[in-house]
Amino acid sequence: MTVLTLHDFKQFSPDKMKKNNLFQTPRFFCDIYGFEPGQAQKGHVHGDQDKVYIVLEGQGTFQVGTEERVLNPGQAVMAPAGMEHGVRNHTQQRLSVLVFVSPNPS
Amino acid sequence: MTVLTLHDFKQFSPDKMKKNNLFQTPRFFCDIYGFEPGQAQKGHVHGDQDKVYIVLEGQGTFQVGTEERVLNPGQAVMAPAGMEHGVRNHTQQRLSVLVFVSPNPS
Repeated sequence: MTVLTLHDFKQFSPDKMKKNNLFQTPRFFCDIYGFEPGQAQKGHVHGDQDKVYIVLEGQGTFQVGTEERVLNPGQAVMAPAGMEHGVRNHTQQRLSVLVFVSPNPS
Repeated sequence: MTVLTLHDFKQFSPDKMKKNNLFQTPRFFCDIYGFEPGQAQKGHVHGDQDKVYIVLEGQGTFQVGTEERVLNPGQAVMAPAGMEHGVRNHTQQRLSVLVFVSPNPS
């Protein structure tokens, strides 16, 4: 039984947004994405995966479909399969986002 | 694009632990479970679902397989398919747990 502390997975990279994996199986993966100010994950589509974003720390601009919304800590949004989605850290602070994707595309 | 605030889903019931659904598709569901002091979800097994627990608030005793561990806010554990798991609020405070199950058994 492996107990993880989320704080340990709030890691960042100067080059691009960092994906820190907590758990994965063929059925899903759970990551924490770390965005330095200005970093983004460009809009993209998964044909067969649903994704949930939950903001842990900081503030980000989330795109789902043609809409964009600013989310704060403790807010969540889902990008269902087939719908374009992306994230941008438009702020001057770091952004940490809990991400669930199901099933695991890899 | 529906933005949810997790705090709104920290709901409880005097009768038994309360399941508050945030998102669901055939691929997964995401709930917040609310446990009043003393409430529990007894050990059980899902043959084909993986489950992730993340403590949002309070403290609980989590069972995975034959092990038990006390988890604090910001800590997470996975119960893979086929492994017995359960939760018990052994404290005098409320316990809120973010839960992901994949795929959705219903």
